[in-house]
Amino acid sequence: MAPHAEDSNGSANVSGANPAPAQELFTVNSPNVEYTDDLIKSKYTYRTTAVSKNASGKYVASPKETIYDFKVDRKIPKVGVMLVGWGGNNGTTVTAGIMANRRNLVWETKTGKRGANYYGSVIMGSTTKLGTDSETGKEINIPFHDLLPMVHPNDLTIGGWDISGMNLADAMDRAQVLEPSLKALVRKEMATMKPLPSIYYPDFIAANQEERADNLIPGIKASMAHVEQIRKDIQDFKAANGLDKIIVQWTANTERYADIIEGVNDTADNLLKSIEAGHEEVSPSTVFAVACILEKVPFINGSPQNTFVPGAIELAEKHSAFIGGDDFKSGQTKMKSALVDFLISAGIKLTSIASYNHLGNNDGMNLSSQKQFRSKEISKSNVVDDMVAANTVLYKEGEHPDHTVVIKYMPAVGDDKRALDEYYAEIFLGGHQTISIFNVCEDSLLASPLIIDLVLVAEMMTRIQWKSHGAETKYAGFHSVLSVLSYMLKV
Amino acid sequence: MAPHAEDSNGSANVSGANPAPAQELFTVNSPNVEYTDDLIKSKYTYRTTAVSKNASGKYVASPKETIYDFKVDRKIPKVGVMLVGWGGNNGTTVTAGIMANRRNLVWETKTGKRGANYYGSVIMGSTTKLGTDSETGKEINIPFHDLLPMVHPNDLTIGGWDISGMNLADAMDRAQVLEPSLKALVRKEMATMKPLPSIYYPDFIAANQEERADNLIPGIKASMAHVEQIRKDIQDFKAANGLDKIIVQWTANTERYADIIEGVNDTADNLLKSIEAGHEEVSPSTVFAVACILEKVPFINGSPQNTFVPGAIELAEKHSAFIGGDDFKSGQTKMKSALVDFLISAGIKLTSIASYNHLGNNDGMNLSSQKQFRSKEISKSNVVDDMVAANTVLYKEGEHPDHTVVIKYMPAVGDDKRALDEYYAEIFLGGHQTISIFNVCEDSLLASPLIIDLVLVAEMMTRIQWKSHGAETKYAGFHSVLSVLSYMLKV
Amino acid sequence: MAPHAEDSNGSANVSGANPAPAQELFTVNSPNVEYTDDLIKSKYTYRTTAVSKNASGKYVASPKETIYDFKVDRKIPKVGVMLVGWGGNNGTTVTAGIMANRRNLVWETKTGKRGANYYGSVIMGSTTKLGTDSETGKEINIPFHDLLPMVHPNDLTIGGWDISGMNLADAMDRAQVLEPSLKALVRKEMATMKPLPSIYYPDFIAANQEERADNLIPGIKASMAHVEQIRKDIQDFKAANGLDKIIVQWTANTERYADIIEGVNDTADNLLKSIEAGHEEVSPSTVFAVACILEKVPFINGSPQNTFVPGAIELAEKHSAFIGGDDFKSGQTKMKSALVDFLISAGIKLTSIASYNHLGNNDGMNLSSQKQFRSKEISKSNVVDDMVAANTVLYKEGEHPDHTVVIKYMPAVGDDKRALDEYYAEIFLGGHQTISIFNVCEDSLLASPLIIDLVLVAEMMTRIQWKSHGAETKYAGFHSVLSVLSYMLKV
Amino acid sequence: MAPHAEDSNGSANVSGANPAPAQELFTVNSPNVEYTDDLIKSKYTYRTTAVSKNASGKYVASPKETIYDFKVDRKIPKVGVMLVGWGGNNGTTVTAGIMANRRNLVWETKTGKRGANYYGSVIMGSTTKLGTDSETGKEINIPFHDLLPMVHPNDLTIGGWDISGMNLADAMDRAQVLEPSLKALVRKEMATMKPLPSIYYPDFIAANQEERADNLIPGIKASMAHVEQIRKDIQDFKAANGLDKIIVQWTANTERYADIIEGVNDTADNLLKSIEAGHEEVSPSTVFAVACILEKVPFINGSPQNTFVPGAIELAEKHSAFIGGDDFKSGQTKMKSALVDFLISAGIKLTSIASYNHLGNNDGMNLSSQKQFRSKEISKSNVVDDMVAANTVLYKEGEHPDHTVVIKYMPAVGDDKRALDEYYAEIFLGGHQTISIFNVCEDSLLASPLIIDLVLVAEMMTRIQWKSHGAETKYAGFHSVLSVLSYMLKV
Repeated sequence: MAPHAEDSNGSANVSGANPAPAQELFTVNSPNVEYTDDLIKSKYTYRTTAVSKNASGKYVASPKETIYDFKVDRKIPKVGVMLVGWGGNNGTTVTAGIMANRRNLVWETKTGKRGANYYGSVIMGSTTKLGTDSETGKEINIPFHDLLPMVHPNDLTIGGWDISGMNLADAMDRAQVLEPSLKALVRKEMATMKPLPSIYYPDFIAANQEERADNLIPGIKASMAHVEQIRKDIQDFKAANGLDKIIVQWTANTERYADIIEGVNDTADNLLKSIEAGHEEVSPSTVFAVACILEKVPFINGSPQNTFVPGAIELAEKHSAFIGGDDFKSGQTKMKSALVDFLISAGIKLTSIASYNHLGNNDGMNLSSQKQFRSKEISKSNVVDDMVAANTVLYKEGEHPDHTVVIKYMPAVGDDKRALDEYYAEIFLGGHQTISIFNVCEDSLLASPLIIDLVLVAEMMTRIQWKSHGAETKYAGFHSVLSVLSYMLKV
Repeated sequence: MAPHAEDSNGSANVSGANPAPAQELFTVNSPNVEYTDDLIKSKYTYRTTAVSKNASGKYVASPKETIYDFKVDRKIPKVGVMLVGWGGNNGTTVTAGIMANRRNLVWETKTGKRGANYYGSVIMGSTTKLGTDSETGKEINIPFHDLLPMVHPNDLTIGGWDISGMNLADAMDRAQVLEPSLKALVRKEMATMKPLPSIYYPDFIAANQEERADNLIPGIKASMAHVEQIRKDIQDFKAANGLDKIIVQWTANTERYADIIEGVNDTADNLLKSIEAGHEEVSPSTVFAVACILEKVPFINGSPQNTFVPGAIELAEKHSAFIGGDDFKSGQTKMKSALVDFLISAGIKLTSIASYNHLGNNDGMNLSSQKQFRSKEISKSNVVDDMVAANTVLYKEGEHPDHTVVIKYMPAVGDDKRALDEYYAEIFLGGHQTISIFNVCEDSLLASPLIIDLVLVAEMMTRIQWKSHGAETKYAGFHSVLSVLSYMLKV
Repeated sequence: MAPHAEDSNGSANVSGANPAPAQELFTVNSPNVEYTDDLIKSKYTYRTTAVSKNASGKYVASPKETIYDFKVDRKIPKVGVMLVGWGGNNGTTVTAGIMANRRNLVWETKTGKRGANYYGSVIMGSTTKLGTDSETGKEINIPFHDLLPMVHPNDLTIGGWDISGMNLADAMDRAQVLEPSLKALVRKEMATMKPLPSIYYPDFIAANQEERADNLIPGIKASMAHVEQIRKDIQDFKAANGLDKIIVQWTANTERYADIIEGVNDTADNLLKSIEAGHEEVSPSTVFAVACILEKVPFINGSPQNTFVPGAIELAEKHSAFIGGDDFKSGQTKMKSALVDFLISAGIKLTSIASYNHLGNNDGMNLSSQKQFRSKEISKSNVVDDMVAANTVLYKEGEHPDHTVVIKYMPAVGDDKRALDEYYAEIFLGGHQTISIFNVCEDSLLASPLIIDLVLVAEMMTRIQWKSHGAETKYAGFHSVLSVLSYMLKV
Repeated sequence: MAPHAEDSNGSANVSGANPAPAQELFTVNSPNVEYTDDLIKSKYTYRTTAVSKNASGKYVASPKETIYDFKVDRKIPKVGVMLVGWGGNNGTTVTAGIMANRRNLVWETKTGKRGANYYGSVIMGSTTKLGTDSETGKEINIPFHDLLPMVHPNDLTIGGWDISGMNLADAMDRAQVLEPSLKALVRKEMATMKPLPSIYYPDFIAANQEERADNLIPGIKASMAHVEQIRKDIQDFKAANGLDKIIVQWTANTERYADIIEGVNDTADNLLKSIEAGHEEVSPSTVFAVACILEKVPFINGSPQNTFVPGAIELAEKHSAFIGGDDFKSGQTKMKSALVDFLISAGIKLTSIASYNHLGNNDGMNLSSQKQFRSKEISKSNVVDDMVAANTVLYKEGEHPDHTVVIKYMPAVGDDKRALDEYYAEIFLGGHQTISIFNVCEDSLLASPLIIDLVLVAEMMTRIQWKSHGAETKYAGFHSVLSVLSYMLKV
């Protein structure tokens, strides 16, 4: 397909194309894998080791194997994505980015022409080793996206809600993320897109967000009316665009933590009652999650707040609905995991981690409020805990590296988030290693491809079922709280 | 054992203790694993995937399983280590470090008391997951050292060669690596240790090393007399200390690359002839390797030069001798691998890597010469190539990030090596990520525990044998060029 | 003088020697400078420009010259320094440092022998251009210390107060600043030194300091008894050591800001009444300042709190007493001034400054409390304001760069303070410059020589008097609030 | 003037406007300053101190005052600038930048609209203190540009030579410095500009520049024909644009150092003879300098090569022609001076400086050749020498910090030069300070305003004359080698 640098399409087109039939890149030739017209069936051996102590106090390690049958629906449906916070930095960037890829756009930048790509998407941008060429002996690597039948992001239809009613072209300008030359190419189409009214409970996000809130479903507390309106919005969007399936994803402001209160949000029933009663500890994201659960639409939570209170999880299980997420863990947090893992695996005793961040986009502005920052801080602090706990040679029980996380709002740097980290570690015989890292990148350009990844994976997982091999039981879907998603969100 | 802060032991003691009988931390309860008094036998399934193309050009991936029988000798021998370059920064630090651990020393530092440890050793400092506690469900992690029966570093007897005849106490001062308070505790014992004369072919290391060269086996070109003297040194050291096994490791200066010349070092026979003839392209490290091969003693090459010319590899294969190595890949290089892997796996297109290093120890002084630096540079540059080649989405065939490596000699920073790296990458829609890293640590304190690791692994591998499961063939040792070692040296 | 590496002096010796007669390095040959046995008299022309607007709105600049007569007492007195917080990191480091210099000590470090020095002291370590050699034409530079007759730090007698009664040898260990080998050489003498009881009003410093407070003058609020005890301590110290002059300097914990309240601390009389009444807004540092003012002893405030409330300043003026200071502005703050000045003078528009700091010493622990940090933050934030205000081309009235200052307590890094700063600026045609700085150094080793500088300068200024040239008025001392000191503390 | 975002001017306009009559911002009301219609006359006292040693070996410092009479021509001429290397990164950026300012352009960027400015120009962007408001006591600061009557950069007419014949619109694209949105506004005008053919002696610049060399005055060695052609180009440009005065500035590639050879370039006569003879050690920049000297046009050398060989300096003196420069000392070098000065003035002993740079523009490509880099390296290394030599307390005679300078060509970073510096210093009592700096900015956006500054200052200095006060001698111009320029180029 030739790149076309102009928006020749006069009419607004929010929909993705009808997906082409699954074009699988390879087949597996194995008794464990079976292909039908509609399905790929496979047998997977899961290996674990149980450890106990014998009479003399010595560990006894007993390896175990469990075999599961999996089946994946090969037919890729027509998928719609509805973003909560569609008009934000991430929402507009995801939308413009998919549009640019779909139309194969090319634009001018300071350093020459650039073409649309999905760099930063693990699904679209990374490869995985399929095996070894039986003739040449060379590694054969294939795009991760081709490992299983997945929807192509170009085929997604996008919509969503926002507390700000600005159309997506203006919202894209407000976000200050994309090059003017790229924006010029998608402006006409973006201008036709306008977020649906959203819900706004002022106590949950920073006060500084209030002036954006001009596009609201009435009511400033949780209510069944809110749940119903969201369900109706989903139904309408699905119908209007002829979609087979909808995925909802929270890309809006980080909320403060909700208190977990007995009788309020601890069980599914209590949560529903609290919504009816307009209880003040029910957050907007929980209301969206509940609406999606009831509508049997997967809901992905892309911010670090505790949307999934115990009552929400119980409700999802009851309805066998998919929920997943907490925070995109983009940039610095993922790199921190990689580095901490690298150091501790090398037998080096990390003694302190200081993580300082500043950014000037609306996420930074919202996080400049203490309560919202707290959600982020909790999420970021525990990333090293597991690794430290696992190394009983370097750390005594309960011993931890010092760890501080700071996020500051600095308007001057805009969406170009800066992270300044210092790692301090003890090495051989009392020596020390000091690592100082300065990391700059556009926050939204790093987060947006991960948002797309979550949609692709969540969609695919709704097409996978499994059972214990040989068991008479029926195939079942994945557990409501999507652990693979969780893995992606973390790692 | 109580820490004792003084050298109560009046007599010089270069030997390690007789190792205690194997104290295994766990047993594996599985039909695949069998324990005898002397051996652990196990069955291991190795999985690969062969890929071919079918008639329609589509990949066909055929998974395969091969089963091997392994056996490990449970008896841990009394091991001696002989270091080439014993009086250098690494040699003296390894020696003093083992002494400090063996005697469980505690010393004063600016920030309080420190005790001996093996931080920075992967074998001694990291843990691995054994399995899950069958009662509590919690992860059980054990020290890596306890995974298989390995010699404890405290039990190693150390000796070696050096072109400088300085005793190890004075050499330790010259190295400027350890705290004065620690040095005071080991000085008396270190002072009794004096390196054996070594071989010095001036053209292979920097001219600035000449003033150290006062402890030489006569002759400035390769000769069979050199080979024989080294073999005799090994025999004598083994006998004098009542050792079961010797490991030799090169920790001396990085040499320039040797030219690979037909008829000179391309076959085992030619190499031996060239040594006899005193050919100028045979390096000291190759002479040491040849002596070890003929003596059936494992030889580990810890510097980035090309010691293992084709003739040396053929010779090792003929004699079923173990050789392994190239370069400790400490510090920055390993971290670079971790970071590049992290970025490319995230679908981020790395476009340039600049690695600037400076250090002021003798390694830095030797590398300040262009020919020796070239060996290091080659070794450091190709660390990213495989990862780039595997990602066919981000990089076209033959496309590479820009990559520069600089090493400068700056006496003022001493052994405190500084690495300043910049990574520049392209992210979504033409955005960029910039990562600048400043890394400081004592070069020798990072390298020394890795030297110990190589000895422990090399020793253990000489006790492992394998064959294809069910085959009538005899068990055999590992291939001469130790790939696991190679893995450790690299990863 | 030969270095002597052992403490041969058996008896405790807290005193400095009797200072040698002034050994001036040069004389000025000029009609404007006159030497007598006791005095140096000089005429100094001070140039200013008055600016007004003429009828047509154009500036008229009128240069003016004022001539002053200065006289400096050439006789250097025997000086005592009393530090508030003597047992802290800075107090012990200053004391041990002067002892090491006085005895010309040499000690072992990891990287070889080091000798005592006054590096980091502007007075002792920097030079100034005296002029040009009349024969060779080369610049003649002389040590700053030789510019005017100043006491040599080796000749200072040191004492002081501390809320912790630990002797200075143990306090030096607690501080974790100096090398063990240096500490061993001064330990015996330091052990004989014990701080006088100090005053402790818990609300003014962080709660985490309470466990140190075991050496107190009774009473937890301001009182005249406190003032009198401090005055008596000064008198006793002076008498016991046969001193001509005492300088008192606050090197203790940063206090929270005191509220400025009408009737309480707004006038000299009200302040004295408030002290008598035990008012809770009178801080310990103000009580020390008042005692010094009444005792006519110069008081230097080395922390960023508002010790000098209006009533204290008025009291100092009444008594013609010297007070000066606020904060040592060591390290990062001074470097920030230098960099901001560099950028703005180059016509570059700085748009944001992020300053992140962490340290693990007791100063850091005290500052980890929000109220005490606030004092530091205020002090650090306004360092760029003047420079920004002066550049009316780059900044509109009231326009400022974004500026954030963070200080975190991280015990693992000890006294090795780390500062991570980012400067972001706009350059030509919308371009940007980003500067990220990572700065590590021992906090107390940077601050201690500046404490010494303040003493030297304060002492010298008490020996300078001035009057307008030709006027019949008598010579007078400097204004109570020492502006030159202030300059040093700032720049 | 309202910003106009479009190029309404249909015709090509390379000329600046006729400058408005001098609009001085202030007058000085002083007997030392006199205003006439055409001149500002002033008396300036220059103070020095001569130092000698008296009989007893003590310094005697004798202050001296010398009074000079200065006169400055108030009439600002119509000035043309001719750049050697007009089509390079700096040449195109200077040209587009002046055009943008002259037309007061505003353009879109990722982060919103930007307007034309002269940020980064010391003359246009910084302010200086005029004095103190006689009423309010507040500081009055005025733009540096208003201190003396100077040409406004908007009024400059620009032209020049280049070995590449590309028009300036295409050359601006090739440079990859400016935003596409800004380039669109100036493209039409830039496209009409085409550099005059230049001279190319291949040995003096990197071989990789050859493919650009398509716009040449014939001949690959120095010749009088070259000198004459350049003189004619200057005359033609002056006539065609009705200019009063021309300034020529070298902004082309850094050349290798020319050898200084007796009989070849040591005297004015020899140099002219060598040009006639086509001697291979006469560089293109020297030929340009000679042409300018003979044409009595100021020549500024903006690269670090040794253009001004002794013969060129003698020739300039003979003809009372102005020559100045060596290297813009932009960015890192100036910041290095500021930092080194800051540290050494604080009495801190700097022990090593490592400066690593990489960039991907054509300057970087040329410098990737060893001979051209050598010119740059020499220029950068001696920036700290004077400061070190002046501090005889910290450094013994001949003692220096370790200092390394590296410049690498990394195409991926384009014009966004990166500088990674480390400063290592010794502080009090053997402590250390480590400062690591990462600095990114568009090389050409930093250099271009400095090129403009040099033109403004050089032009002004040709209008200043001076003589000793009271002397009967005539007023004279500044010495040929412009020391103030030199100051600007350095500081």
